[in-house]
Amino acid sequence: MKLAVDAMGGDHAPESVVSGCLKALSTYSDLEIILYGDKQMIDSFIDDQPDRLTIHHTDEKIEADDVPTRAVRRKKQASMVLAVQAVKNEDADAAVSAGNTGALMTAGLLMIGRTEGIERPALAPMLPTMDGSGFLLLDVGANMEAKPSQLLQYAQMGDVYMRNVRGIERPRIGLLNVGDEAGKGTELTKAVYDLLSSSELNFVGNVEARDLLDGPADVVVCDGFTGNVVLKTIEGTAMSLFGLIRKELTSSLKTKLAAGVLKPSFKQIKAKMDYAEYGGAGLFGLNAPVIKAHGSSDAQAYFSALRQARTLVLENVADTIKENAAVIDKEEDTADE
Amino acid sequence: MKLAVDAMGGDHAPESVVSGCLKALSTYSDLEIILYGDKQMIDSFIDDQPDRLTIHHTDEKIEADDVPTRAVRRKKQASMVLAVQAVKNEDADAAVSAGNTGALMTAGLLMIGRTEGIERPALAPMLPTMDGSGFLLLDVGANMEAKPSQLLQYAQMGDVYMRNVRGIERPRIGLLNVGDEAGKGTELTKAVYDLLSSSELNFVGNVEARDLLDGPADVVVCDGFTGNVVLKTIEGTAMSLFGLIRKELTSSLKTKLAAGVLKPSFKQIKAKMDYAEYGGAGLFGLNAPVIKAHGSSDAQAYFSALRQARTLVLENVADTIKENAAVIDKEEDTADE
Repeated sequence: MKLAVDAMGGDHAPESVVSGCLKALSTYSDLEIILYGDKQMIDSFIDDQPDRLTIHHTDEKIEADDVPTRAVRRKKQASMVLAVQAVKNEDADAAVSAGNTGALMTAGLLMIGRTEGIERPALAPMLPTMDGSGFLLLDVGANMEAKPSQLLQYAQMGDVYMRNVRGIERPRIGLLNVGDEAGKGTELTKAVYDLLSSSELNFVGNVEARDLLDGPADVVVCDGFTGNVVLKTIEGTAMSLFGLIRKELTSSLKTKLAAGVLKPSFKQIKAKMDYAEYGGAGLFGLNAPVIKAHGSSDAQAYFSALRQARTLVLENVADTIKENAAVIDKEEDTADE
Repeated sequence: MKLAVDAMGGDHAPESVVSGCLKALSTYSDLEIILYGDKQMIDSFIDDQPDRLTIHHTDEKIEADDVPTRAVRRKKQASMVLAVQAVKNEDADAAVSAGNTGALMTAGLLMIGRTEGIERPALAPMLPTMDGSGFLLLDVGANMEAKPSQLLQYAQMGDVYMRNVRGIERPRIGLLNVGDEAGKGTELTKAVYDLLSSSELNFVGNVEARDLLDGPADVVVCDGFTGNVVLKTIEGTAMSLFGLIRKELTSSLKTKLAAGVLKPSFKQIKAKMDYAEYGGAGLFGLNAPVIKAHGSSDAQAYFSALRQARTLVLENVADTIKENAAVIDKEEDTADE
């Protein structure tokens, strides 16, 4: 299996990207990686280049604040664009980037193409839950705004993923909302509630943000703006709390000693909440796997994103969504009647 | 000063409401409270009724899932409605309820009235930051959807509050968004960004959810759906983490002993994150103070909401917003040009 990787995207690129790739190559012997980016910079982080790593040099890259459509159309030699192009040309099975989310989505749409029957692709990370099973949240920012029919499709894609990749027979589908009752929320959530209720999915109703980490559903759908805010609020709150704990526990010799005893426990807790362990987010609804790694990925987080890309390829997720899109389309028609 | 309190609203009513009131009365000697609700139930939680506590019996109450407008119009003797009515009749200076947010907003609008120049009142809690100073988030759910002009007004009301009540000379105003750059987000956030940029306010730009608890702004504005989701995500994440920590630290005798030493530190951390300490949320933009206590308020949280109601009255917040609304109106006109 071959992954096309954008070496220049992300806050810590290319160092963390290269380190993540080296780790992935030494972990998975079935893996080949093509790295797109500045060869000299990439080389400076490699002591001994593995056989299964190819470096494809390019000077151009897409910046975090580039306007997506324009950037993808103009910067034809950008590292991200080349990585996605490789998947289109069937030189690679999946593309991975920690760069500009909008640009990655645009490149995916323009080059790899949207799955027939899906109006909009969605960015879908797995988030941790307290019991360790996790849930899929979508969309977290592929599209800022969404129509009711699109949220129904997010739910259907999430359902396909959880059934086929995670082996959950009847995934519980939840709608992120501000209360339990059917009439709660915005015009959008009210319309989606009705669509989900009359769908074939195992819709468990509204899910409140307060309960998300308790795992009330296997798939939670919302518009991309809300999903992005939720994702970053969970992250920010967890990081702030860990910061506070560290500060408090190193405030005196006594607390330092006690904290030393508890170090393994804290490590356990942090691992449970650590997004670095949860990998990137798949862009569901494209004709081949494209994975967005977290913008602030360190080597470990990038490794997890690569691991996830490998799973998406092995488990044939894009194809499975494509095959199920016919069914989705049919359900859609029924919902419209 | 007299507060009108809905004894029947909230998950732990009337017990936590009554206990919170008793604590407030013994803490503030300038306080009088009228409790509206089922006298027999209320009495069962009072050993020795203080002089400054009056109980106004009523059988009716508004339920959490009542449709706001209909409930307020039909249940004229509901405890919440009577509490708000008392403010309208000038029998009390402020009303407090932990019940149905929509109904409280409706009662406030219908009976106390909207401040001239403000299109929509906003629900505005203070949230904790790591440095202890806190920030005002609005709206967290008074209105599910909002127009750009309304978010500008939220910012202006927040500015008035932080200047006049919290003594911050030039409050930093932030717009909750999914990225730093001006062009980020939804149609709404893009329009609000422009309005805030050309206003007289000290607009510090977009604020990302990830950074909220670091206090990048004194006032953060967003639509009510997003604000509600953010509030509950912070709460849920903090609660889940504390739950995990408790579980890990009591898993063996060794960790239990070490955790015992750290108990004061954990208490300190919890207090910083504890919404019970931060009181309720003011409904800004009404002609008199109406405070929404958290639905799951315990006695301490209810006490904090009463303390906040007292501050809002003492500091004349509703009047200050009213006086400034003329200015707001003028700025609005300028912004429209």
